[in-house]
Amino acid sequence: MLEQIQSPRDIKKLNLKDLNTLSKEIRKKIVETVSVTGGHLAPSLGVVELTLAIHYVFDAPLDRIIWDVGHQAYAHKLITGRYESFHTLRQYGGISGFPKRSESPYDCLDTGHSSTSISAGLGMSTGISLQKKNSKVVVVIGDGSMTAGLAFEGLNNAGHLKKDLIVILNDNEMSISPNVGALSSFLSRKLTGRLVRRFKQELESFLKRSEVGENIWAVLKRSEESLKGLFTPGMLFEALQFDYIGPIPGHNIEVLIETLKNIKDLDGPILLHVITKKGKGYPPAERHPERFHGTGPFDPITGEPKKPAKKLPPTYTEVFSNTLVELAKEDKRICAITAAMPSGTGLKKFQEEIPERFFDVGIAEQHAVTFAAGLALEGLKPVCAIYSTFLQRAYDQIIHDVCLTSLPVVFAIDRGGLVGDDGPTHHGAFDLSFLRAVPNLVIMAPKDENELRHMLYTGFKLDCPVAIRYPRGRGLGVDLEKDFKTLECGKAEVIEDGNDVTIIAVGHHVQTALTARKILLKDGFRPTVINARFVKPIDEDLIIHYAKMTGHVITIEENALIGGFGSAVSELLMDKDVSEVKMRRLGLPDRFIEHGDQSILRETLGLDARSLASAARELLRK
Amino acid sequence: MLEQIQSPRDIKKLNLKDLNTLSKEIRKKIVETVSVTGGHLAPSLGVVELTLAIHYVFDAPLDRIIWDVGHQAYAHKLITGRYESFHTLRQYGGISGFPKRSESPYDCLDTGHSSTSISAGLGMSTGISLQKKNSKVVVVIGDGSMTAGLAFEGLNNAGHLKKDLIVILNDNEMSISPNVGALSSFLSRKLTGRLVRRFKQELESFLKRSEVGENIWAVLKRSEESLKGLFTPGMLFEALQFDYIGPIPGHNIEVLIETLKNIKDLDGPILLHVITKKGKGYPPAERHPERFHGTGPFDPITGEPKKPAKKLPPTYTEVFSNTLVELAKEDKRICAITAAMPSGTGLKKFQEEIPERFFDVGIAEQHAVTFAAGLALEGLKPVCAIYSTFLQRAYDQIIHDVCLTSLPVVFAIDRGGLVGDDGPTHHGAFDLSFLRAVPNLVIMAPKDENELRHMLYTGFKLDCPVAIRYPRGRGLGVDLEKDFKTLECGKAEVIEDGNDVTIIAVGHHVQTALTARKILLKDGFRPTVINARFVKPIDEDLIIHYAKMTGHVITIEENALIGGFGSAVSELLMDKDVSEVKMRRLGLPDRFIEHGDQSILRETLGLDARSLASAARELLRK
Repeated sequence: MLEQIQSPRDIKKLNLKDLNTLSKEIRKKIVETVSVTGGHLAPSLGVVELTLAIHYVFDAPLDRIIWDVGHQAYAHKLITGRYESFHTLRQYGGISGFPKRSESPYDCLDTGHSSTSISAGLGMSTGISLQKKNSKVVVVIGDGSMTAGLAFEGLNNAGHLKKDLIVILNDNEMSISPNVGALSSFLSRKLTGRLVRRFKQELESFLKRSEVGENIWAVLKRSEESLKGLFTPGMLFEALQFDYIGPIPGHNIEVLIETLKNIKDLDGPILLHVITKKGKGYPPAERHPERFHGTGPFDPITGEPKKPAKKLPPTYTEVFSNTLVELAKEDKRICAITAAMPSGTGLKKFQEEIPERFFDVGIAEQHAVTFAAGLALEGLKPVCAIYSTFLQRAYDQIIHDVCLTSLPVVFAIDRGGLVGDDGPTHHGAFDLSFLRAVPNLVIMAPKDENELRHMLYTGFKLDCPVAIRYPRGRGLGVDLEKDFKTLECGKAEVIEDGNDVTIIAVGHHVQTALTARKILLKDGFRPTVINARFVKPIDEDLIIHYAKMTGHVITIEENALIGGFGSAVSELLMDKDVSEVKMRRLGLPDRFIEHGDQSILRETLGLDARSLASAARELLRK
Repeated sequence: MLEQIQSPRDIKKLNLKDLNTLSKEIRKKIVETVSVTGGHLAPSLGVVELTLAIHYVFDAPLDRIIWDVGHQAYAHKLITGRYESFHTLRQYGGISGFPKRSESPYDCLDTGHSSTSISAGLGMSTGISLQKKNSKVVVVIGDGSMTAGLAFEGLNNAGHLKKDLIVILNDNEMSISPNVGALSSFLSRKLTGRLVRRFKQELESFLKRSEVGENIWAVLKRSEESLKGLFTPGMLFEALQFDYIGPIPGHNIEVLIETLKNIKDLDGPILLHVITKKGKGYPPAERHPERFHGTGPFDPITGEPKKPAKKLPPTYTEVFSNTLVELAKEDKRICAITAAMPSGTGLKKFQEEIPERFFDVGIAEQHAVTFAAGLALEGLKPVCAIYSTFLQRAYDQIIHDVCLTSLPVVFAIDRGGLVGDDGPTHHGAFDLSFLRAVPNLVIMAPKDENELRHMLYTGFKLDCPVAIRYPRGRGLGVDLEKDFKTLECGKAEVIEDGNDVTIIAVGHHVQTALTARKILLKDGFRPTVINARFVKPIDEDLIIHYAKMTGHVITIEENALIGGFGSAVSELLMDKDVSEVKMRRLGLPDRFIEHGDQSILRETLGLDARSLASAARELLRK
C-alpha cells in the first residue's frame, strides 16, 4: 500500500484499517532501510501513527507541519513523495536524514538542532495571521527537547502572543538518553511530594475560613490520595497560557485523528500531550531505544550492529571516555558534564564509574557551560563534553561566564569537522573560527587518539579555559602511551623536516599531510610536515621559521576557511612582514556542506591527501 | 553611618532603626554618585533593603551572594569596602558597574549579561557540596531575567539535582522594559482565565464521584472567586521542585531579615519571591523606572538629564529608529523584534507607530532570532535588533535557523565595538569574527549615520540574511539624504585617493582614517582612504588593486583582531599572492577590554587618528 501513496492526499482516502496496515508497512520500510543506511531509527518508529494522523487531519503543505530536531521525520518523508528515493537516505547525493526545504514543499523548516520548532512555528503563525493567510501550524516536539531554554522562551512568548499554534508534545519519557530535569519528573507525574502538600495547605486554609469549609476539608482529607490526580502535567503549560489537552495514547490512530480534528479549529496556543514509545513496533529498538536513537547499519532480524570484518581502531570518543575516567580517578576535582548525550560524548563510562561527579543537565548547552563555570569557581575541574555543532548554542556562556574570568573549564569538543551522514546541521564547521576570537582560551586539536590523551592531561594542567577538538570517527590505531605527557602550551610539532614547502596540519589532517608528503616525495619534493597541535596560541616562531625557510606554506584543517587556523597563519605572516612567502589554505569553503560519507566529502572538498599534494605542487610551481 | 561600614560584618551590629537609616544614606549616595557618573540607577535603588538583609543574615564572602546581571549591585558595593572608591564608578580605572571578582572577594561571579545566576549558583552549590564545604549560595534574579531560556534551564536542573540553593526572585514587574511573556502575567497573578477554569473542571469531576463530593462542589462553586486565590506564582516553581516562599514585601527590612533567617538552613532549592519597586525612594526614578534603568548624568533634584551645551548629532540608534519606521510604513512586510530592549535598540518608535508588526519577546535572544526565521519563512521581512554583545547568545540560531536556509532576516546590531562605561561584558568585540564565518550572511558597517539609512534600505533589498553593525553613540552630524540608495553588495567606497598607503576602515573608523590622513598629508604622505562598507563579502578586486598600487595596507576596525575584517584582508592578500605588500591591522587586542570612556579606550588601544597616523608612518618606513 505504501508505494501507492504519492502525497498526503492519498492518506485521507484510507479507512482506519488501511491506516493501521500502512503503519506496519512504513515501520517495515524504515527498519529495512535504516538497517542498511544507518539513521535515527527509534524516534521515527515512535511517531508513525502520529505522522499519519497529522497528515490525515491537516492539509500540508498549506498547513505547516514542523518536526522538532527532525530525526523523527522518516514516516513523513515516506508519505510525502520520497518513497522511491528513501533508500538513498543520508547517502551522498541522496535525501537528507532531516526535513529540508530544498528537498520537498512538505518540509517547511530546515531542522537538525533541537528545540527550535516552537519559536519558528510561532513566527510562522504570526506571519500567517499578519497576512491573513489560512494555514495552520502544527509543531511536534519531544519531551527531551522541552528542557532546552529555547523551547521555554518559545512557549512563554506563544502564551503571550496568543496566536494559533498547535504544539504536540511527543512524550516518550526519553530524549536521546533517559530524560533528566525537574520538568521531566513533572511530566511523568511524580508529583507525590511538595506540590501536593502545598496545595493541601492552601486549600485547607481557604476552606477553614468557614464552618462549612471545615467540614469539606475533613471530607477531602480522607481522600488524600485522590487529590494528587488533580495535578496534571497540564498545569505547567496552562500556567504559560496554553490550552492543555491530553495525555492521549500516541499509537492509536483513531484517538489521534479524533483529537486532532477536535482541536484543529480551536483558537490560541494549544498543547496536545501524546504518549508514544520510542522504537515502537521493532522489538530490538523498543528494548534499547537509546542504542537505536541513531544507529549504524544493523541486522534487521536480530538488531545486532553489523560487525566490521576486522578489529578497528578505537574512536576518538572512546579514547576520550577512557582517558577521562582514568584521570578523574586520580584527581577528585575532575567533574564531567553532558547536555543529554552521555552515550554520544562517551561520558557513559564516567557516569557508571564516578556517578557523584557526573552531571547530565538535559538538552541545555547554555546551562551546561555556566554550570561548569560555577563548579570551576569552587575549585573543581569540570569537563564540558559538547559536540562542536551544539557548542554554538553556548557561545555567550563560553565568552561571558568562562573566559572572561579565565576559569579552568575543559571543553571536550567531539564531532569537530565533517560528521558525514547527518549533514549541514551537524558538521562541526565553525568552532575554530568562533572560539579563536575569544580571549584566554587555549585551543588544541590532536593528530591522533594517543595525542588526545596527552591533550586532555595537559588541559587539566593549564589553569585557564581549554578547548580540545577532535573528529567523529576512529583513530589511527596507534599505540596509546600509558604515561601522560604535558604538552608545552602553544608549541607545534615538526614531524617531517623538508625544505621546499611547509604543510601545517590541524588535528587528524596531520595524517593527510603525511600521506600527501609520500606522494610529493615521489615527485621529488621535500615537504616539511608540522602538527599544529595548538590552534591558539599558534607557534609563531616555528611557523615563521619554516615559512621563511621553505617559502611555501599550506595549511589544512577541517573548519571554515574564514577565521580558522589558516586564517591565523595568514594574520601572522602579514603581521610579521613575512611577505616573501606563498601560501594556500585548505579547509571548508564558505557554504554549508551537504551530507554524505566523510571520505566522499573530504575528496569533493579537496581535503584528501591527493588534493593536498596537488595543491602543494601547484603552489610550488608559482 | 555609611562611611563607617567597612564590611558586611558592620551591618550585623546594627538594629532595625539603624538599618533603615543606612538604607536612606545608601540611596542618597547612589543618587548623588550616579547623577554624576551615570549608571544603573533604578535597579540598584530597588534592592537596598534586600541587600542589607542578605548581608545581615548571610556571611559573605564565605556565603556566595550572586547578583544576576549585576546592575543592581551598587548597595552591595557600598557596604563591601567600596564606599571610598564609589565616585569612580564606571570611570576608566575606577570600579566597575557590575560585580567583578578581581575587584572584591565579595563579588563571587563576574556578571553583566542576564540570567546566568541560577546556573552558576547551582554549579557553585554543587561544588560546595562535593567538597563538603560549609557555604550557602544566594542568588538574586529579577523577574525579567526569568524569561530567558538559560534561567529556565538552570531552574530545571536545580530542581533535579536538589542541591541547597536560595533563589531570590526580585519581582518588580519590570525587567528593563515592562515585562512581557506568559510567565510575566503568571507572576502578576493575572490568573483569572483558563487555569482556574480548568482546575474547577477537574475538581468538579473529582468531587462528583461521590454524593458528599457533590455537596462540597455546590458549596465551593458559590465561593468561586476565592478559588483563584489558590493559585500562586509558587505553583510554577513548585512544579520545578523548588520550595516556594512568598511573596514578601521587599522594602521591609524586618520581614526580609526574619524570612531569610527562616530559610537560611532549609535544604534543597528554595525560591523566595520578593516584591520590590524599581527606583524606590527616588521619586523621578519611581515615576520613570525605564528611563532610570541605565542613565547618563542628570540633575539629582529634578531628575532631568544634563543637557549638552549645544545641539548634538543624532545617535546611530535614533537614525536606525526613524529610518526603520520610515521604511516599514512603505513596506508592510517589515516587522521589528527586540529582546526586552525597545528603548535601547530604538524600536520604541516602531512599537508606538506600528504596534501590530512589533514584537518584544522578552529577554530571549535565541527565540528572537528563530521567531524572526519563522516570520521570514512566511514572506515577511523581520528586523532583529539586538546589541552586539547579546547577539552572542543567539549564535546557533543565526547559523542554523536563519543562514542555513538563507532567510532574509536583517540583524540590526547596535553597540558594535567599544561601548565604554559598561565594560568587558558589554563591548561588542567579537561580532565581525563570529559572524564572518557564517555562510550566506552579508555584513555591513556604515561610515556615518546617513550611510546607515542606505544600508538598512539595501538590507531589505538583498534576499538573504544581512547584518548591519553600528556603534554606540552619536553620528557625525552629516546630512541625512531623503532618497534611499541601494548599495552594491560587496563593493567598497574609495573616499580619498592616494599612492603610498591604503587605509581601509570599517564603520565609524572611516572618520578616524580621514583625520589620520590629514595628519599624514602634513608629513608629505598621500594615503588612500577606503570605506570597507561590506565586511562580508569584501571588495576583493578593489583591495587588491590598491594594495598593489600603494604597497602598504592598514586596516582599522573596532572588533577583535582575531578573525575580524583585517583578518579577511590578510586571508585575501595571502590567497592571491599579493605578497609584496606590507600590512598592519588595527583593532581590539586578544584580551577583554576594561570599562571607561570610549575615547579614552580608543586612545589607549591605538584606535584614534593619531595612533593610526603613527602606525602608517611606521609601516611606510619599512
